[in-house]
Amino acid sequence: MNTVPVAGAYPAPVEELRLRTRAFIRGTVIPAEPRPGQALNLALRRELQAAARDAGVFAPHVPVEFGGQGLAVEHWSPVFQEAGYSPIGPAVLNAMAPDEGNMHMLQLIGSDGQKRKFLTPLAAGDISSCFAMSEPHPGAGSDPDALATTAVRDGSGWRIDGHKRFTSGATFASFAIVMARTRADRESPAGATMFLVPMDTPGVRIGNPIHTVDSYLPGGHPNVHFDGVHVPGSAILGEAGLGFKYAQVRLGPARLTHCMRWLGLARRAMDIMLDRANTREIFGAHLSQLGIAQDMIAQSVIDIETSDAIIAKCAALLAVDAKAGSALSSVAKVHVSEAVYRVIDRAVQLCGGDGVSDGLPLAQYLNEVRPFRIYDGSTETHKWAIARRTASERRRAVEAGEPFQGAARIYEGER
Amino acid sequence: MNTVPVAGAYPAPVEELRLRTRAFIRGTVIPAEPRPGQALNLALRRELQAAARDAGVFAPHVPVEFGGQGLAVEHWSPVFQEAGYSPIGPAVLNAMAPDEGNMHMLQLIGSDGQKRKFLTPLAAGDISSCFAMSEPHPGAGSDPDALATTAVRDGSGWRIDGHKRFTSGATFASFAIVMARTRADRESPAGATMFLVPMDTPGVRIGNPIHTVDSYLPGGHPNVHFDGVHVPGSAILGEAGLGFKYAQVRLGPARLTHCMRWLGLARRAMDIMLDRANTREIFGAHLSQLGIAQDMIAQSVIDIETSDAIIAKCAALLAVDAKAGSALSSVAKVHVSEAVYRVIDRAVQLCGGDGVSDGLPLAQYLNEVRPFRIYDGSTETHKWAIARRTASERRRAVEAGEPFQGAARIYEGER
Amino acid sequence: MNTVPVAGAYPAPVEELRLRTRAFIRGTVIPAEPRPGQALNLALRRELQAAARDAGVFAPHVPVEFGGQGLAVEHWSPVFQEAGYSPIGPAVLNAMAPDEGNMHMLQLIGSDGQKRKFLTPLAAGDISSCFAMSEPHPGAGSDPDALATTAVRDGSGWRIDGHKRFTSGATFASFAIVMARTRADRESPAGATMFLVPMDTPGVRIGNPIHTVDSYLPGGHPNVHFDGVHVPGSAILGEAGLGFKYAQVRLGPARLTHCMRWLGLARRAMDIMLDRANTREIFGAHLSQLGIAQDMIAQSVIDIETSDAIIAKCAALLAVDAKAGSALSSVAKVHVSEAVYRVIDRAVQLCGGDGVSDGLPLAQYLNEVRPFRIYDGSTETHKWAIARRTASERRRAVEAGEPFQGAARIYEGER
Amino acid sequence: MNTVPVAGAYPAPVEELRLRTRAFIRGTVIPAEPRPGQALNLALRRELQAAARDAGVFAPHVPVEFGGQGLAVEHWSPVFQEAGYSPIGPAVLNAMAPDEGNMHMLQLIGSDGQKRKFLTPLAAGDISSCFAMSEPHPGAGSDPDALATTAVRDGSGWRIDGHKRFTSGATFASFAIVMARTRADRESPAGATMFLVPMDTPGVRIGNPIHTVDSYLPGGHPNVHFDGVHVPGSAILGEAGLGFKYAQVRLGPARLTHCMRWLGLARRAMDIMLDRANTREIFGAHLSQLGIAQDMIAQSVIDIETSDAIIAKCAALLAVDAKAGSALSSVAKVHVSEAVYRVIDRAVQLCGGDGVSDGLPLAQYLNEVRPFRIYDGSTETHKWAIARRTASERRRAVEAGEPFQGAARIYEGER
Repeated sequence: MNTVPVAGAYPAPVEELRLRTRAFIRGTVIPAEPRPGQALNLALRRELQAAARDAGVFAPHVPVEFGGQGLAVEHWSPVFQEAGYSPIGPAVLNAMAPDEGNMHMLQLIGSDGQKRKFLTPLAAGDISSCFAMSEPHPGAGSDPDALATTAVRDGSGWRIDGHKRFTSGATFASFAIVMARTRADRESPAGATMFLVPMDTPGVRIGNPIHTVDSYLPGGHPNVHFDGVHVPGSAILGEAGLGFKYAQVRLGPARLTHCMRWLGLARRAMDIMLDRANTREIFGAHLSQLGIAQDMIAQSVIDIETSDAIIAKCAALLAVDAKAGSALSSVAKVHVSEAVYRVIDRAVQLCGGDGVSDGLPLAQYLNEVRPFRIYDGSTETHKWAIARRTASERRRAVEAGEPFQGAARIYEGER
Repeated sequence: MNTVPVAGAYPAPVEELRLRTRAFIRGTVIPAEPRPGQALNLALRRELQAAARDAGVFAPHVPVEFGGQGLAVEHWSPVFQEAGYSPIGPAVLNAMAPDEGNMHMLQLIGSDGQKRKFLTPLAAGDISSCFAMSEPHPGAGSDPDALATTAVRDGSGWRIDGHKRFTSGATFASFAIVMARTRADRESPAGATMFLVPMDTPGVRIGNPIHTVDSYLPGGHPNVHFDGVHVPGSAILGEAGLGFKYAQVRLGPARLTHCMRWLGLARRAMDIMLDRANTREIFGAHLSQLGIAQDMIAQSVIDIETSDAIIAKCAALLAVDAKAGSALSSVAKVHVSEAVYRVIDRAVQLCGGDGVSDGLPLAQYLNEVRPFRIYDGSTETHKWAIARRTASERRRAVEAGEPFQGAARIYEGER
Repeated sequence: MNTVPVAGAYPAPVEELRLRTRAFIRGTVIPAEPRPGQALNLALRRELQAAARDAGVFAPHVPVEFGGQGLAVEHWSPVFQEAGYSPIGPAVLNAMAPDEGNMHMLQLIGSDGQKRKFLTPLAAGDISSCFAMSEPHPGAGSDPDALATTAVRDGSGWRIDGHKRFTSGATFASFAIVMARTRADRESPAGATMFLVPMDTPGVRIGNPIHTVDSYLPGGHPNVHFDGVHVPGSAILGEAGLGFKYAQVRLGPARLTHCMRWLGLARRAMDIMLDRANTREIFGAHLSQLGIAQDMIAQSVIDIETSDAIIAKCAALLAVDAKAGSALSSVAKVHVSEAVYRVIDRAVQLCGGDGVSDGLPLAQYLNEVRPFRIYDGSTETHKWAIARRTASERRRAVEAGEPFQGAARIYEGER
Repeated sequence: MNTVPVAGAYPAPVEELRLRTRAFIRGTVIPAEPRPGQALNLALRRELQAAARDAGVFAPHVPVEFGGQGLAVEHWSPVFQEAGYSPIGPAVLNAMAPDEGNMHMLQLIGSDGQKRKFLTPLAAGDISSCFAMSEPHPGAGSDPDALATTAVRDGSGWRIDGHKRFTSGATFASFAIVMARTRADRESPAGATMFLVPMDTPGVRIGNPIHTVDSYLPGGHPNVHFDGVHVPGSAILGEAGLGFKYAQVRLGPARLTHCMRWLGLARRAMDIMLDRANTREIFGAHLSQLGIAQDMIAQSVIDIETSDAIIAKCAALLAVDAKAGSALSSVAKVHVSEAVYRVIDRAVQLCGGDGVSDGLPLAQYLNEVRPFRIYDGSTETHKWAIARRTASERRRAVEAGEPFQGAARIYEGER
């Protein structure tokens, strides 16, 4: 039987890692946080990463052989939530997107050589990476089928041409995982293929930056141009033509780790809001005793607890049934991204003028999480997918004999 | 380690009971459902209960020794949801409030004699019961401290006087569990005490009925008067003065079983809505392809999945930590009661004119679940309790050394 | 300049009629209201209508020549809101759907003979009427183009065949306005045509009733069958082929009068909620001082005031620009129908157990207004129409030279 | 009779000013807008102000004698909405807070000398001003009674001491209107008094800046310190002790002009969203045809239209009944501030990645309006006030004879 661990009843090593992480975030990371609106300094990041290694909390999701804490996927949530309690926590613990998802995928489908060359230094925090998938309109955005970047065979290797954007982390990355369209040939079907491309390969160029409202992570989300970039055959990650399938592999858990990290930040906002409510007086009473504040607090607790529960359910399901788990991750992603935004928005509101100033970090948190309702599939894109999947599952069930219930019945006479 | 079972990965006997229940509800119960707005006929209920016994699905939550299926609390949810897929399913399976909660409490704190006399026939479905707690204003309602019904020692027994209302099931009940205020004496503290009172005891009188918008369950929610009702000392359930504590014992799981049953009904409404969306055309397209309907369907899936997840989390928590589980049951109750109402409301809307007529049962479902946002603690009462508890937990954490984060920081100079 | 009258600054005759109506509803109508869930008795209705005539408040919207108060459309709202303060008020004042809309249309496009024969007794309250438009799936519902009822020339007259449903008031109606599809011929284009059909015409038959959740108005919303019904040429209302155009004429103001009446009922629910909040204690404080109740009350005030404002704006716009007014009536209808439902739902919630019982009328009010979110175009149908209209207006504006603003701009360098 | 002008039916001079303003904003202001996240350059502002004077659109709300367009309050809304269509529009037209509200107050209660000295150059755009009211906790914030800044008689003048914050515009202001607590004496009651204080008066010092999430207006919202600031007796604005009353005078219309301006910005966001929906394809269809986008568009139209309607109603009411108008302005402020935020948030969402980047200005708009849900009374503070006022009005009505409706009625027997 597969199971979801209950909070307060995790296996001892997990609970210990959670508590170590909690202590490290509170004792070491929070005091080093930059001013709201400013990026984490790279030198400081390295320093804090070293401290995290010393504290035994570095890279919780990475196998021990690669220098991490070896946590199983179904136990990531409590630890990632502790990390996300600081907006720079995940970066310090080397558990931040896009590196974290890239590590996960390298671990699952990378060759031994690729793991040695890319995963080892990435897991160690010595280098960073990016994931080059989104393209300018009308290329790959919400609709991956529109992929415009191409890779064609070129001697023993490949030639990649295309324009990517929203390539988070590209500015400081050592390599990119690049999604490109490839033609069918004897060896592989037509489709998308993933390539491991060092950023110093000739033809790779960082284009204009794209400034988004989030700001803690350095490097922005720039345009990246691939103009006649030549890579060897060994640059293919997994098999040619299976890129979309791998993207799903990456996205299921990646979506969920986003949820975990941001839920941690919602808990931070909640604590700020509670500290304010417990100490400030308005209208002669503690805010916490005033019902409108109580409604905001209670609603936030409900948002946090249901988010925690759906993440746990989804993580456990991913382990027993990857396809069902991936489907449920859409539900989790929509619920958690919207819930986290609501919690922080309420905290801003309850803290009044301080809430929208940089005296408190809340307004910046709002800007940090705003994009999460859009990236990794927007709320609307996921809802569309959820509705279609649910409606067609029901249709198949009815076709398979489940009684149809959509017809209105006519009753004669009075009731 | 305590765990939450993942859907699709329950222990085999649980999954088998779930599937048997599912088949029984679809094959036997749904075809026998009364017309929307009409109560389940008592004779038909008995007949269907006999069929449930034959099908091995009767009283899933009741220990085998009392004739049930012996399901552990953490496995109730999947089976109760299957039962609730029909609005009369729980009554047919003898898993309906208030009997189900009364059974649970008798099992936990009843004496052997009380179990023999009251639990055995109740579990068998031979008799039914009621729970006499709510009183007219200004008595016990949202605020149990206002309890106006009294019990005073009278010879070797007790004399009970009071007026109860919203006493669901009283009309056909064989006995009531009556909550009454008792004074402190040598043997027990002042407080509330629960009494087992046969309904044919002299002085017990069913008063005016109270018509509420739900209608499947026969008997309404009448006023019940207790005028000089004499009961023996053995009528006390548990110990004198501990009634409120027991009520909490009863309410935690009882709140959650309500959630489970009504979530089953939300799934029914969902299927009706999907069958309609899959087959009716409007504006030249299937409703399921129209985005506004898609939004309604997706939002309903999210409501159902998060409800399922928070119920599972809470049921598992109740097993390891009754106090924390009871606190979380407030969160679950608010979320599920509101979510279920939203799902059914959307189904009504999507089915248009048929949705508000008795050609489909949806409008009646809406009326069946409307009171659930109020009874067992209204949404607002629970929110108030959640906010107070959360704020004071945080205050204690800060007092215990957790860094205070509510002060706005002042930065000099420009950023 | 056309203007919206401001509350408290209506012309004296309007304000006087409003106050007379207010006094009549409070003094005469409310004391005669039936028990929640029961229909208004027809004999009592006649009696109350006589009293309304005596009080000078009967048929406020009807021209004086037909026995009404001659109120101009832009002044209907304050008076209709007063009428709607009682769920039976509009019926008593002869200002209830479908009669009110039928009177309006007869007045606008009826011939003198039709006015004499149908409008005069209808306006006097001597007879009642119905509007036969909705049909069973796949006929005319949300999509009027699907109209299946036909009228073909038959000698000097017409032969009507079809099946209508949700024909509110048909049971007691003296005549129906029937919408039927007619073919193009020398005299008129293909389209829909409206016919005035006495209900005792051979071939007209009341079919099975349809029970909906509303219950104050007697007669339900039955199926009506037209089997070979012969009517003379003079039965055509307006011109042949223009039925859909006339339906729009009818629907714009009719939609708005629904909003006015139901907004009156929301004000009633508000008063009940306030009376409760002002007098009941919970947790040792007046509910009105508890913030969660305060939030519910304030949100209800906002719902009521914005509803009142959009109705006033739309009524004024209808007078200067019927097409723009009709478009805005979609916005008003969606906002008011949802707002009214929310207000009553909050009142139910705030009144707890009494809210869902028939001790207070609130739960029944909820059932009375629930269909309003569906009929006269469901919320979703209107939203679809609003979005399409708005998007295409903007597209045309851009085509006409308004600068296009949808392209993302690329900035080079840092900001 | 007082009236609300209907859109499309304004008096000719108003409509002409609206159209001139519209053309000026689109032709001159929008092309000059700074990059999202950057403040309007002061030199550019002066240049654009000159162009506005030339175009005959400068200072629409200012009497002609002071160089404005002399628009009456009830006609401000259409023109201010046109101004607000650009986030820098109101500043260019000299119709921006806090100057606009300060002009309004000077005009209403300033002496001739004060008007000459302060209003004339302010209305001309030659100088700017600030309003020094908010103080650090526990001073005057949501609760003005907590005012900590004091003014004491000092010779023939006054000495002012205190610390203000969130003093928008202070950095570049020539004078401040300062709210200070004064004691009762022979000439005036205890209370708050407003003083006109040139910013170069000795003892006035700009303190630390406060960075809030909005950024178009230069100068931020700094702390301002008043240490032993001596002003003459003629510095008092209006009468001593009446400061709170005047603040209400200022706040009613000021609150409403905020609503008007921000509603203009919501219309801008709407156009951006529509341009995107009309031209981008996702999933093979125009976004505008996809229902989830349709729902977002329709809901935004409803938000905009109801905001426009409640502003119009409130502006008209302010003219006939200042007290009722001020009360209704709370309702308008809550509704419009929340509605505008929702509209922009939906526009961000619909534009996906571009929505949260500075390729489009939407994310910055979200940051510009976020504080509006807090300043001039937060949503929660207004709701609290609305609920209290509404509940007590109803209580007085019941005391005056209006029938009490809060008691549950008991019906005997079945219905």
